[in-house]
Amino acid sequence: MKTAIGVDLGGTNIKAGVVSASGEVVATTECPTLAAEGPDAVVGRMAKLVADLKPKAGSDVAGVGVGSPGPLNQLTGMLYFTPNMPGWDNYPLGANLAKKTGMKIVVDNDANVAALGEYQFGAGKGTRTMILLTLGTGIGGGVIIEGKVLNGPDVTAGEVGHIVINPDGPKCGCGNHGCMEAYCGTAGILSRAWTLLEKPNAVSMLRDWTGDDRLKLTPAMLTKAAEQGDGIAISVLRETGRLLGVGIASLTNLFAPDMVLLGGGISGAGEFIFRSVREEVEKRAMAPNNKRVKILPAKLGNTAGLVGAAALVLRA
Amino acid sequence: MKTAIGVDLGGTNIKAGVVSASGEVVATTECPTLAAEGPDAVVGRMAKLVADLKPKAGSDVAGVGVGSPGPLNQLTGMLYFTPNMPGWDNYPLGANLAKKTGMKIVVDNDANVAALGEYQFGAGKGTRTMILLTLGTGIGGGVIIEGKVLNGPDVTAGEVGHIVINPDGPKCGCGNHGCMEAYCGTAGILSRAWTLLEKPNAVSMLRDWTGDDRLKLTPAMLTKAAEQGDGIAISVLRETGRLLGVGIASLTNLFAPDMVLLGGGISGAGEFIFRSVREEVEKRAMAPNNKRVKILPAKLGNTAGLVGAAALVLRA
Repeated sequence: MKTAIGVDLGGTNIKAGVVSASGEVVATTECPTLAAEGPDAVVGRMAKLVADLKPKAGSDVAGVGVGSPGPLNQLTGMLYFTPNMPGWDNYPLGANLAKKTGMKIVVDNDANVAALGEYQFGAGKGTRTMILLTLGTGIGGGVIIEGKVLNGPDVTAGEVGHIVINPDGPKCGCGNHGCMEAYCGTAGILSRAWTLLEKPNAVSMLRDWTGDDRLKLTPAMLTKAAEQGDGIAISVLRETGRLLGVGIASLTNLFAPDMVLLGGGISGAGEFIFRSVREEVEKRAMAPNNKRVKILPAKLGNTAGLVGAAALVLRA
Repeated sequence: MKTAIGVDLGGTNIKAGVVSASGEVVATTECPTLAAEGPDAVVGRMAKLVADLKPKAGSDVAGVGVGSPGPLNQLTGMLYFTPNMPGWDNYPLGANLAKKTGMKIVVDNDANVAALGEYQFGAGKGTRTMILLTLGTGIGGGVIIEGKVLNGPDVTAGEVGHIVINPDGPKCGCGNHGCMEAYCGTAGILSRAWTLLEKPNAVSMLRDWTGDDRLKLTPAMLTKAAEQGDGIAISVLRETGRLLGVGIASLTNLFAPDMVLLGGGISGAGEFIFRSVREEVEKRAMAPNNKRVKILPAKLGNTAGLVGAAALVLRA
C-alpha cells in the first residue's frame, strides 16, 4: 500500500501522520514545536516524528509532505520568514529535513495544504474548484482551482480570511481593517456577543455561564447556548454567518467554486451559521455561481493539515 | 506571418480585427450589434466582419477568437444566456459562427479575454499572475493565474468588480450591495462628486462647467478639473482610488499577483487615482504580496477585447 507521511508544522505543536493513498490516517503522533529553540532543533523534532512513524508507513512510502507557515519557495522548500517563529529567515526547511530523514520532502503553505486535504480526501472530494475556510482565532484556508492549489510565487496566495468586508471595520491581526477574519475570527465573534450581553436588560444563559466575566466567554458556549434556544447566542451566530456570507459571496464571484467548506471551531454551530451564510451568498453572489456553490462543513477537522501535507506527496 | 481574427461582441457594437502573432493589430472593423434582431442575425454580422477581414489576415490565419458576454460553455461555444441580449438562451454561438465562416472558433468571456489581451500583448507582458480592472459604467476585467485565464466552469469566474467592499454600501447593478463596481463605476463616482458639489459653499469649476446640472457631469470632466487643480475633483478621484485600493488589497491577498492593471475611462485620471490605489494596497495587503504587486495603467484600451480574443486562438 502506497503511503506518505504528512507533517503539520504549527506555532505550538507539530502533528504528523501516516496517510494511505486513499486518504486514511493510519497512525499519528505529535510533539510541541518549541520554536524558540530555533529552526534546527525544530527540524530535529520533525525528523524524530518522521522516524517514529516510518515503521508504520510500510515499504512503499512516497515521501514526506510538510505544511508550514509561509512565505516559502515551494520548489526548494526554503522558508523566507515566519511571523510567529523568529529566527527562521531564509531557512532551508526542505533541504535540512531531507538531510535528516533521507526522504523526499515537499513543503507548502499550511493553510493551503489543509484545503488540499479536504479536496483530495475530505468533504471536497470530486469537486473541481473548492475553497476551505478554517474558522478559529484567525481564518485560514485556501483555494483549489481545478485541482491545483492557488499558491502564488511564495505560497502566500489564497488568504481567504483577509479579504476586506468593510473598509472601516475593526483592525485585523494582519494590519488591515475590516477583514473577514476581523469580524469572524474568535475575537470578532465574542466582541459582538458582549455588545449584546452588556445591554442593561439582556437576558441570556451566557451571563450566568460566564458570571458576567467577558473573558470566560468562548465560541463553544455560544453554540451550546444557541442549541438551548438562547436568543442572544442565536443572533450572534446568525450575524457571524451573515458576515461570512458577505466575504464568501465575493469569493464565489471570483472563483465560481463548486463548494465552499467551513471548518474549525465556530463551524460546529452548524445550521445557526450555515443557513445565514447560504442565504447571504444566494442573495449577493451572481448567477449562475450563487446557485452552483454548495456551502458545507469540512470533514477532516484537526487532521486536514497533515492529510493535505501527505497529499502533496501522494499526488506528485 | 501567423495571424488570428479577434471579435469583441458587445451589447452595442461588434468590433473585430486581425491580430498578428506578436499582438500587432493589422486591421480593424466594426458594426452595430442590433441584438434585438436575434442571435442568428448577429452571428451573420459577425461572419460578415470576419469575411471582410480575412483578405487582410494573410494565408496563415489560425482562426477566430470571440469575446462574448457569458455564461457559456467554453468547449462548445454554447451561450447559456446573456443578461443584456434577450433571446440568446442556449444559443450555439461557436458552432453557428463556425458554420458561417468555415473557420476554427474559440469563444470565451469578453471581460476575461480583455485581461488575456493585456497579459499576452499589453502592459502585463512577462508577468505570471495579473489582474485587469476595466473601469467604466461597470467594472469588468479578469484574472490570469500563471498564464491561465481564471474562467470557472462557465467563464463566469473572475468578476473582479463584484467583490463587496462594504456590505451596507449602495445597490450594485448585479443585485448585490457595496460591490467595488457600485462605488467605482461611473455612477458611484459621479454620485460622490455631487455630494460634495451640492454643499452650499462648494467652490469648483465643475459647477460652472455643468451649470449645476448634475446630469451633465462626466468622469472626463473630473479628470480635466483635477488637472487644473480643482479641489473637489481631486478629492473625488483620490477617494475613488482609495476605494479601488480596498478591493485591490483583497485581490492581492487572494491572488498574489505581480501586476494589477487599471484600464477604462477614469483610469485616464492617472496619478490622481493610481497614487491612492497604491497607498491603500501597500497599507492593507499582506507582505510580501503588497510589496510585489505593481499597479499600472492598462495599455490596449478599446482593442484589449479583440486582441485578447485573437490571443485565444494564437496561443491554442
